[in-house]
Amino acid sequence: MKYKPASQSRQEGYNQALMTAPDFSFDLLARQGNARVGVFHTPHGPLQTPVFAPVGTQATVKSLTPRQVDELGASLVLANTYHLYLRPGDELVAQMGGLHRFMRWEKPILTDSGGFQVFSLAEMRKVDEDGVTFKSHIDGSTHRFTPEKSVLIQENLGADIIMAFDECAPPYERAYCELAMNRTHAWAERSLNAKKRPDQALFGIVQGGAFPDLRARSAGFISSLDFPGYAIGGLSVGETKEDMHRMLELVTPLLPESRPRYLMGVGSPEDLVNGVLRGIDIFDCVLPTRLARHQAAMTRTGRLNMMNAGFARDPNPIDASCGCYTCRNFSRAYIRHLIIAREMLAATLLSIHNLHTLVQLMADIREAIGAGTFEAFAAEFLRGYESRE
Amino acid sequence: MKYKPASQSRQEGYNQALMTAPDFSFDLLARQGNARVGVFHTPHGPLQTPVFAPVGTQATVKSLTPRQVDELGASLVLANTYHLYLRPGDELVAQMGGLHRFMRWEKPILTDSGGFQVFSLAEMRKVDEDGVTFKSHIDGSTHRFTPEKSVLIQENLGADIIMAFDECAPPYERAYCELAMNRTHAWAERSLNAKKRPDQALFGIVQGGAFPDLRARSAGFISSLDFPGYAIGGLSVGETKEDMHRMLELVTPLLPESRPRYLMGVGSPEDLVNGVLRGIDIFDCVLPTRLARHQAAMTRTGRLNMMNAGFARDPNPIDASCGCYTCRNFSRAYIRHLIIAREMLAATLLSIHNLHTLVQLMADIREAIGAGTFEAFAAEFLRGYESRE
Repeated sequence: MKYKPASQSRQEGYNQALMTAPDFSFDLLARQGNARVGVFHTPHGPLQTPVFAPVGTQATVKSLTPRQVDELGASLVLANTYHLYLRPGDELVAQMGGLHRFMRWEKPILTDSGGFQVFSLAEMRKVDEDGVTFKSHIDGSTHRFTPEKSVLIQENLGADIIMAFDECAPPYERAYCELAMNRTHAWAERSLNAKKRPDQALFGIVQGGAFPDLRARSAGFISSLDFPGYAIGGLSVGETKEDMHRMLELVTPLLPESRPRYLMGVGSPEDLVNGVLRGIDIFDCVLPTRLARHQAAMTRTGRLNMMNAGFARDPNPIDASCGCYTCRNFSRAYIRHLIIAREMLAATLLSIHNLHTLVQLMADIREAIGAGTFEAFAAEFLRGYESRE
Repeated sequence: MKYKPASQSRQEGYNQALMTAPDFSFDLLARQGNARVGVFHTPHGPLQTPVFAPVGTQATVKSLTPRQVDELGASLVLANTYHLYLRPGDELVAQMGGLHRFMRWEKPILTDSGGFQVFSLAEMRKVDEDGVTFKSHIDGSTHRFTPEKSVLIQENLGADIIMAFDECAPPYERAYCELAMNRTHAWAERSLNAKKRPDQALFGIVQGGAFPDLRARSAGFISSLDFPGYAIGGLSVGETKEDMHRMLELVTPLLPESRPRYLMGVGSPEDLVNGVLRGIDIFDCVLPTRLARHQAAMTRTGRLNMMNAGFARDPNPIDASCGCYTCRNFSRAYIRHLIIAREMLAATLLSIHNLHTLVQLMADIREAIGAGTFEAFAAEFLRGYESRE
């Protein structure tokens, strides 16, 4: 591959996108109950749903090369607007030809709006109707995000799917949830108006905490705006599993059938199965790569702590039924040795395994929905899964 | 690949090795001056020389999967007996089917004798004529290595090439160098006598510090023993470049033409070129992977500090003439971003690049020797290389 000057290649990419920009249509291929199989068309190829997106916070899925992420079967990667805006800067990424070229991921990318990190990571924040002023968690410098600014940053980054700027409130604080929801609605309209690039799909976000009436109002308002996809934010942030499920059951029927639905920041294997059962098409979560850096392996029956002394002389792979590079090649004894010897390869091999476990789970879910056996699949899965929550 | 019980597979492997054990012959294919091209036959395939071996201290080349090590072109990997004896233990490795199976490296492996680490890393050490008593740098526990113990550990690990137990003294301390050399000679004979496995090649080691007369005596004695290969130890440990070259020029003519010569713990690109010029066939060094973890890229003209602010918006690869995965895909700007964001991928991409640089240099050296152009190649290389020493 030849390197071209970044500005030239960015312009080329942009021109090409204008000519060949897909309509971001969503083809529903199969249904069972509320669960659906679909294809979402993006400028970087079709995305089969339901899909799980590994998180590449700083334009890298931690401890993996993009080739490894591709080989383990991932099709969509999420990157964080807040982090990339601060470092290396969205304008630098644009100069380098956009995020796909910068991080060498040729399949679809999704960026969040930056809102969640501003509200969870930034050192100081002051919200007003127009936007948020905050201090960088890296160097304490002051910055301001507005819906327009978030869209501009995401246009510089150049992901296929971008998100409207939103505010995520603690799920059981009613007054704050209502305030944040109303701001999220106003910001959704402003995000839509600010958007210029035709080759990006902007998704709206439903908020409303754990309050059914707020969630219903939010789903109604956001779905009245013409977004090519809809996200459900503010879940998996401290509410009970029951409340998360109740909110999903309430919200998804209020969203258009013909558009993909994205449950942000979720989840564990059981959360993915429960989400699909309730009509979710897209998921992302740091869990598999974060657990990998904390010596935990995900399996379809629960988690394994690979430091466990019982694995010291265990010649078996993490999961005998798993087809990932790690399980095809390495013993539990070797992975435990790498962890104890503090070798970086431990995080790499566990990340490959954990991500493959979720990606393969989604592939099996798609197949089960297509075959009309998903309800039995889900029931058996949830019966066999040992929850840690 | 199926997992078999380790003990069974080890026995199978051992039986198979007995039947098909190669003679560890060394075919000399081409020569120019003192430089040679050869093939060393091992149970895990033929090894083209001159060759550079990446170091996998704890049964992993740091930050890389064995597939990545294979894809970047490496053919021989070194692992450290001292480290693996302490953690996870050589008997555990044997139970898991040996080092090749444990770390999933199917090409040749070389283990050192443990001597160098005992003398450089262990917290306390007491040498006598019979061996060395030392305390583990990990937990302070007391251990003892003798030539027989070192061979036994290396037989448990199961590398293709194993090393006689030796003592490496500071290069300019004459009395100690002579004492250590004499012990190394006695231990070489004992190592040869202790060796049982027919499918491992035991190399003898020449010592003698920076003293020409000691080096000549050591080369004479060690080459009088029938080893399938000979190593030169105790260099690149603090002596001047001039002294290292002088010792090589003195020692290699005293070693049998028909056996491979291994310069231990070397080196930088210029050291490799200088070593081959003086008749060396095998090299190993932690330098490329250690530099990678310290943000430095090796090139054929010198080192680059990838933190350099000048790389912040540089769309070019580390080295436009390099064909490695890193240089085919990633910009200097991206690598600098990963370093500043403290992402593990930085070490991985730089390790791939640095190792490929040395592996490709050795391939080019072999080609130049074959074509009879190596002297010109070496002169031009050394003129263009900016030494850091």
